Amino acid sequence: MRKVAIVGTGHTPFTFATEKTSIELFSEAAMDAIIEANLRPKDIQALYLGNGLGDFSEGQAMLQSYAANDIGAFHIPATRFEGACASSSLAIRDAFIWVASGYYDVVLAGGVERAASMGTSMATRTFAMFTDSHYEYPAGLTFPAIFAMLAHLYAERYGVRLEKLKEQMALVSVQSHYYGMFNPKAQFRKEITVDDVLNGFMVSSPLQLLDCCPFSDGAAAVVLVSEERAKEITDKPVYITGIGQASSGKLSAQKDYLPRLRAREESAKQAYDMAGIGPGDIDVCELHDCFSIASLIAAESLGFFEFGKSGEAWEKGETKIGGKIPINVSGGLKAKGHPIGATGASQVTEIYHQLRAECGERQVEGAKIGLTDTLGGDGVLCTLIMQKGW
Amino acid sequence: MRKVAIVGTGHTPFTFATEKTSIELFSEAAMDAIIEANLRPKDIQALYLGNGLGDFSEGQAMLQSYAANDIGAFHIPATRFEGACASSSLAIRDAFIWVASGYYDVVLAGGVERAASMGTSMATRTFAMFTDSHYEYPAGLTFPAIFAMLAHLYAERYGVRLEKLKEQMALVSVQSHYYGMFNPKAQFRKEITVDDVLNGFMVSSPLQLLDCCPFSDGAAAVVLVSEERAKEITDKPVYITGIGQASSGKLSAQKDYLPRLRAREESAKQAYDMAGIGPGDIDVCELHDCFSIASLIAAESLGFFEFGKSGEAWEKGETKIGGKIPINVSGGLKAKGHPIGATGASQVTEIYHQLRAECGERQVEGAKIGLTDTLGGDGVLCTLIMQKGW
Repeated sequence: MRKVAIVGTGHTPFTFATEKTSIELFSEAAMDAIIEANLRPKDIQALYLGNGLGDFSEGQAMLQSYAANDIGAFHIPATRFEGACASSSLAIRDAFIWVASGYYDVVLAGGVERAASMGTSMATRTFAMFTDSHYEYPAGLTFPAIFAMLAHLYAERYGVRLEKLKEQMALVSVQSHYYGMFNPKAQFRKEITVDDVLNGFMVSSPLQLLDCCPFSDGAAAVVLVSEERAKEITDKPVYITGIGQASSGKLSAQKDYLPRLRAREESAKQAYDMAGIGPGDIDVCELHDCFSIASLIAAESLGFFEFGKSGEAWEKGETKIGGKIPINVSGGLKAKGHPIGATGASQVTEIYHQLRAECGERQVEGAKIGLTDTLGGDGVLCTLIMQKGW
Repeated sequence: MRKVAIVGTGHTPFTFATEKTSIELFSEAAMDAIIEANLRPKDIQALYLGNGLGDFSEGQAMLQSYAANDIGAFHIPATRFEGACASSSLAIRDAFIWVASGYYDVVLAGGVERAASMGTSMATRTFAMFTDSHYEYPAGLTFPAIFAMLAHLYAERYGVRLEKLKEQMALVSVQSHYYGMFNPKAQFRKEITVDDVLNGFMVSSPLQLLDCCPFSDGAAAVVLVSEERAKEITDKPVYITGIGQASSGKLSAQKDYLPRLRAREESAKQAYDMAGIGPGDIDVCELHDCFSIASLIAAESLGFFEFGKSGEAWEKGETKIGGKIPINVSGGLKAKGHPIGATGASQVTEIYHQLRAECGERQVEGAKIGLTDTLGGDGVLCTLIMQKGW
């Protein structure tokens, strides 16, 4: 298979409810990506679009064809991927194989969502459609409840006092908000404190409001090309060197494995093996912090810290710039925002710019290899994408 | 790229509302496909699942992970594709490239829908989400209205009197119902007459009830493998020799091109070019007859008949077994049923069995090359898959 490079990215601001349609939002990101790659719409041979709930949020399913037409990439094959919050990571992983196989040379991949526009009640209800809808959702398992349950399981499994865990979780949010201040695309650009988190509105014990990422509107897109085309376009291509994806059954089927999420660990093994590296080789990571506890769990399953020790790592600053493994210096889902269908593409965009040393005040100096981790639903799907600089 | 073969298929009965969940329905088809291929669930390396409206029909999005777990293909990457009525054709086309590229050797692809379970009102409304939801749906363009409009445009463009066209359209439904009698998986196994069609309930002039396919529940799945694996599994593998996919903008963006559908013609060009053949080489075709007029339009764009002449072809029996190009001898969407996310996989399944001469009373003798044509939405997406016997 051929090497595949990213040569352009686009990213709308992640925001509260916007009046733009999903197609308008995606087109904005898509055109920025095409322009950044010094290409034109007619150069795009196929579109891979992640979108979770366009049908519910604005009565528009199958956005992909309209989006392709809207950017002037007329008549190209356009495919929609739905994998909950990992929708656009699925799209990018898939776009990868179409280029790696030699079938296409230049494709566009990304995602869009108007989750904020739906309002909190509707978004909470429809997000729950990504859980097991026949047995577990009726038992009350909306997303905050699920991750609250994982937090309790985490505390129990690793013998961390719940009050201590709450402080560690708060630090996750505090760090994300700190870095979010330096990201002009972030929904929240406002510093918060541990006290702000601990004194906030209780959403689902032990998760308080600032343990939870927001509902967001936004889009992100990347241009993927063959190595040959990449070298014509830029002297700083970033290659996709590893991909991983795995699934799990419903939470109750995972039984004693929780609070670890099996799909992530299977996915990580694939991505590391394909890239021929290990967790210690990663210079910068964007992981799926839909809730603060999700960050702690993810960082362990990705191999950065021992199980049960993530909280201490955040306490020691090991996840900050200059630390062992800088995590979510974009602001993460927590501060940057989480328009679910766009999140994976947003993470890939951040890593791309980190590897090109274009991130200004949130730059991880000398970053050469970066990893994105995107969770779909309550962990039944996880997609990893590894990038490496030229 | 490697050759890719189909070596097993599964197909639930297509029915009126069922009490089975989408995951149960899909698993039934998937297990049949795996067993037919003499494989076990653990042999499946990835799942590609088409589903249009699982979130609306039963509050279950992201079926793919649950489905993979349900069939015992634990932890494999599982991806959902949504392209309206072409959802599972997208899934199969995509599964093709993962095997062709050498990344996987054995994958499962298919689709599922519970459209009948939604009831007619809900299904009509949610199907309309596949049209342009911001401008055209608010103008009244649900699917019956769209294809009724195309019928009027067809009559006008080609100078066919509307009453004549209605008779020709009726013949399309009559033929599909005739062949549906020989398909044990078909929703309708009942012969109808031209009079039955013409005297039926008017849905959207000139389309009467029997010009329209039904809402259906059902699932279909196929196992795709590399050539090497195919030869180990069967002495009658069927190869995918061509794929095509294209998109269009909303109907009003297609202007004077209507009633032809641009996405189909672009898609057909790709598939014929890839396979190195032309329309005259096709022995059997399953095309997207969501409405009787849709069959006439499709058969012309696929190159079987001159524009404006499809109706005459049906009148002359050229689309019957023994005719120039047997079309929809499975019963088509009209008689076999149209569980939208499953339709493409169902079409591919029919062609597979035709090429293996396993279709009994509806067998097209000596069929060596077959084509499926699946439309997504009101023509904004079209996917073609070409199969050829060993």
